[in-house]
Amino acid sequence: MPDQPTTPKAVQTGPAEFAMAPGALEQAISFLQAGFGDRVSVAPAIRQQHARGEGLATSLPPDAVVWPVDKHEVCAILARCNELGVPVIGYGAGSSLEGHVSAPHGGICLDMSRMDAVLAVHVDDSDCVVQPGITREGVNAHLKGTGLFFPVDPGANASIGGMVSTRASGTTTLRYGSMAHNVMALEVALADGRLVRLGTRARKSSAGYDLVHLMIGSEGTLGIITEVTLRLHPLPTDVAAATCAFPTLQAAVSAVTEMVQSGVPFARIEFLDEHQIRACNLHSQLGLVELPTLFLEFHGSETAVREQAESAQEFAAQHGGVDFKWASRPEDRTQLWRARHLAYFAALALRPGCSSIIADVCVPMSALAENVALAREHIDREALIAPILGHVGDGNFHVVFMPMPDAPAEHAAVDRVYGAMVARALAAGGTCTGEHGIGMGKKAKLLAECGPDVIALMQGIKKSWDPKSILNPGKIFGA
Amino acid sequence: MPDQPTTPKAVQTGPAEFAMAPGALEQAISFLQAGFGDRVSVAPAIRQQHARGEGLATSLPPDAVVWPVDKHEVCAILARCNELGVPVIGYGAGSSLEGHVSAPHGGICLDMSRMDAVLAVHVDDSDCVVQPGITREGVNAHLKGTGLFFPVDPGANASIGGMVSTRASGTTTLRYGSMAHNVMALEVALADGRLVRLGTRARKSSAGYDLVHLMIGSEGTLGIITEVTLRLHPLPTDVAAATCAFPTLQAAVSAVTEMVQSGVPFARIEFLDEHQIRACNLHSQLGLVELPTLFLEFHGSETAVREQAESAQEFAAQHGGVDFKWASRPEDRTQLWRARHLAYFAALALRPGCSSIIADVCVPMSALAENVALAREHIDREALIAPILGHVGDGNFHVVFMPMPDAPAEHAAVDRVYGAMVARALAAGGTCTGEHGIGMGKKAKLLAECGPDVIALMQGIKKSWDPKSILNPGKIFGA
Repeated sequence: MPDQPTTPKAVQTGPAEFAMAPGALEQAISFLQAGFGDRVSVAPAIRQQHARGEGLATSLPPDAVVWPVDKHEVCAILARCNELGVPVIGYGAGSSLEGHVSAPHGGICLDMSRMDAVLAVHVDDSDCVVQPGITREGVNAHLKGTGLFFPVDPGANASIGGMVSTRASGTTTLRYGSMAHNVMALEVALADGRLVRLGTRARKSSAGYDLVHLMIGSEGTLGIITEVTLRLHPLPTDVAAATCAFPTLQAAVSAVTEMVQSGVPFARIEFLDEHQIRACNLHSQLGLVELPTLFLEFHGSETAVREQAESAQEFAAQHGGVDFKWASRPEDRTQLWRARHLAYFAALALRPGCSSIIADVCVPMSALAENVALAREHIDREALIAPILGHVGDGNFHVVFMPMPDAPAEHAAVDRVYGAMVARALAAGGTCTGEHGIGMGKKAKLLAECGPDVIALMQGIKKSWDPKSILNPGKIFGA
Repeated sequence: MPDQPTTPKAVQTGPAEFAMAPGALEQAISFLQAGFGDRVSVAPAIRQQHARGEGLATSLPPDAVVWPVDKHEVCAILARCNELGVPVIGYGAGSSLEGHVSAPHGGICLDMSRMDAVLAVHVDDSDCVVQPGITREGVNAHLKGTGLFFPVDPGANASIGGMVSTRASGTTTLRYGSMAHNVMALEVALADGRLVRLGTRARKSSAGYDLVHLMIGSEGTLGIITEVTLRLHPLPTDVAAATCAFPTLQAAVSAVTEMVQSGVPFARIEFLDEHQIRACNLHSQLGLVELPTLFLEFHGSETAVREQAESAQEFAAQHGGVDFKWASRPEDRTQLWRARHLAYFAALALRPGCSSIIADVCVPMSALAENVALAREHIDREALIAPILGHVGDGNFHVVFMPMPDAPAEHAAVDRVYGAMVARALAAGGTCTGEHGIGMGKKAKLLAECGPDVIALMQGIKKSWDPKSILNPGKIFGA
C-alpha cells in the first residue's frame, strides 16, 4: 500500500473547524517520544496501517501512533495533547466501516491493543470488567468454564472499546440486545486527561443523566474509554442452528417479520440473499442452494429450543421455506457462523480489486420486506454487483456495494441506490445506520435523519466536554 | 392542607444559582392568562396540589399551573418563559418520590394530564406513540385486543412522561427491562420552544449520540417531552403467579440470587419482609403468613411457564421456602399485584400521621443478601418502624421509613440508616437510586455516587441545552 502524504491535516472534509497551532504537533510527538520510547511510531507504514478500518476507502493517517499500556498513560497523553490542541484518535481493532479511525485533521492515534486485560469476572453478578483493547473473542475465551458468555457479535472480532464507541450490535441482538444493553459502566479519560467513572455494577439505576449510554456510540469524540464493565449472560443449556432457503426474497423476509412479531425469543435470524449465498459457497464451501436463505439459531432449555425450532419451521413453511438444514454438532454451527461472519470478505472475493461500501439501514419490521425488495430492484436496475444480507430480525440489513475504484459511473450508481435506501428507511420511521455508526462516511445521512437542531444539541454536548475539539475531530458532525 | 407562602422561589435548596428578574413572573402569568383562559390557575389550592409528589414531604408550589392540550402550546409556553427567564416544571401524575415536581425557584407548572392521547399503535412493529400525560394503565387499556402490552410497572399508575423522566422501572424489569429499554423515540420541546425528534422506530440505531437515553432520566431538566414512542411486547400465552414464604430474610434473598443467576427468564420476583406482609394483610386482606415472602410471576408458553415454576420451586426449596401459594385465576393475580402495588400505602397505614421517606438502593446480586440484612439490622437497632420490600431480582430494594413529622430524633435515625445503606450500596458497586431518581431529595447522594467531575459533565450538558436554566431548576444538581 503506498504511503500517504505526511500532512493529512490539510485534507479537509468539511468546514475547516479544526487547525493545529504551529509547532504543536512537533511538541506532542516530542512528549510521546520522551515518555513512550519504542511504543510510539511516526513510521509511514505504521501510520498508514492506522489510517483506515474496513469499508470506507478514505485513508488519512495520523501523525504518530502510540500504544499506551494503562489508563495513566492515556490520561497523560490526553492532558498534553489538550494543552497543545492536538487531535487524539482512539484505535481498537480497525474493523469499523465508516472511517472512524481516519485522521482528517492529523494528530495522535492511541492504539489500545495493549490494554487488553480482563480485570475482573464477577460470576455471581454476571458481569466482567475489561480493558478496551480486548476483542470480543478474547473476552469469551477468558470466560470459558464460567458458564457465562458475552453475546454481542458484530461479525468482526472487534475490540470492546470500539464496539462501545460505535454502539455495535449484530447477529444476536434480537435476543441479547446491542452494546446499548450490555455495557453497565465505563471508565473514561476526558479530553483534558481527567479520569471519570460512569455507571455502576447495579442492574439498573436512575442516578442522574445516563452518561453511559451517551458514551456508547459517541465514536471517540467525548473521551477515551479505559475500562468497560460488560453484562454477561448464562450460556444456554441447549443450542440448535439451521438454514432454510426460500423461493423469493420477499418470502424469506415476510417469514422473519412473523417470527419476530410472535415474540418467540429466537437467538439469531440472519438473512443472506442468493448472491451472498453464492459468495459464501465459493468462499466457505457451504454447499447451500443458491436461494434467499435464513440462518437461524435457538437458545434455551432443551424444551425451549424444541419449541422455538418448531415455531420457526411453522412460520417458514407458511412462506414456502421448508427445507431446514440442521447444524446440530457444535463444529457444524461454528462453520455456519464462521461463513456468516466471513460474508463480507466472501462478497468482496466475487470481484477482485473492487472497493467496498457497505450500506446499513434499519427499519421497523413492517417496512422490512418492502425496503429490502426495493433495494434489490434498484440494485438490479442499476446493474450493480451487490449482495444483500442482514440482521433482519432487528429490521437491519446491509448491501455490500462493490464498485471498481476507477469506475466513477459505478460509484454514482452506488450513491443513487444507497441514497434511495436511506431516504426510504427514514420515510418508514427507520435510521440511516443500524449498527455501523456515522464516522466520516455518513455525516450527511445523519443530518438528513436528525435535522440541524438535533445535530446542534449533539455539538453542544461535544463542546462542553471537549472544548478544544481534540477528540476524533471530523467525525459524526462538523469539526 | 394549608396553603404555602406565595413566594416559594425564596426557598433556597442550594446556592442561589437561579433568580427571576423583577416583573418576569408577572409577565409570564399575563401571557398564560391571555392565551389559556381557564386552563391556567394561580389559585393557592391548585398550586398546592402541584407542589409535591408522593414520598418527600418538601412541598414548594409553583406560581401558576397551566394545562396545555398540544405540543404547540407547550412550545409557546417554553419560548415565552425562556425569554423571561421563568422556570418551567413538567408535571405528570404526581407520583414521583423525590420532590421532582416541587418548585424551589417558583415558576410555571406544566400539567400534562390533558395531553393523554394514544397517537398510533403499530401492531406489526410492536410499538405505539403516545402523548406524555397518559398513564401506564391508560396505555394498556388502549392496547386491549391487540395482543400487545406495555410492561414497565413501577407500581403507581404514573404518567408515561414522568416514567421517561425518572427512568422508571419496577416489578417486571427483570424480564422486560426498564424505561431505558422500552422507549424508542421522543419528541421534545427544548428550553427555547423549538421542537425536536430524537430516535426512530427502528429496533436499533447507531446514528450519533444517544439523545433518547440522555432524555430518559433527565427529570424535566433538558426539555419537556411531548410525544413518546414505546416498545410493546406480546402478551404471554400463559401466566402464573405465586407467593412463597421463607424462614428468614436471608433465605428469601439468597433464593432470589440463585434464581437470577440461573438465567431463567422470570417475569417478576418481588420481596416483602414480614413487616410489609403484615401491613399488606391489614390493608389488602391477603391472609399471608407473616414471614419474609417472595411474590413471583412466570410468563411464556404453557411449557415455559411450567418449567420456570418448577425451577423457582427448586431454588426456593433449597432455602426453606416450600409453601407455594398459587394465584392461578386472573382475578387472584390481580388481587396479589394490587396488594403489592398498594404496599407503600399499606405500610403508611401502620402508623397514622407519619411522614414517609422511601429508600431506594440497587446493588449487584452478590451483595444483595448482605445489604438487605444489614439494613434490617440497623433499622431494628435504631428501633424504627420500616418495612423492607423490593424488586430483588434486579438487586433493587426499598425501605419505607415512617418517622413522625414532629420527631427529630426519628428523622436523625432515618438519616443514619439511609446514609449507611447508600454508603454500603456504593461500596458494593451499586447505586443510590435504582428507580426513583434524584429530584431534590438525593442530590447529596448523587454527588457521593458520581463525584464532582461527573456532576460537572452533567451540568455542562444542562448548560448547553438550557442556558438560562429554566427547566426544572433545583433538581439533580446545583441550579
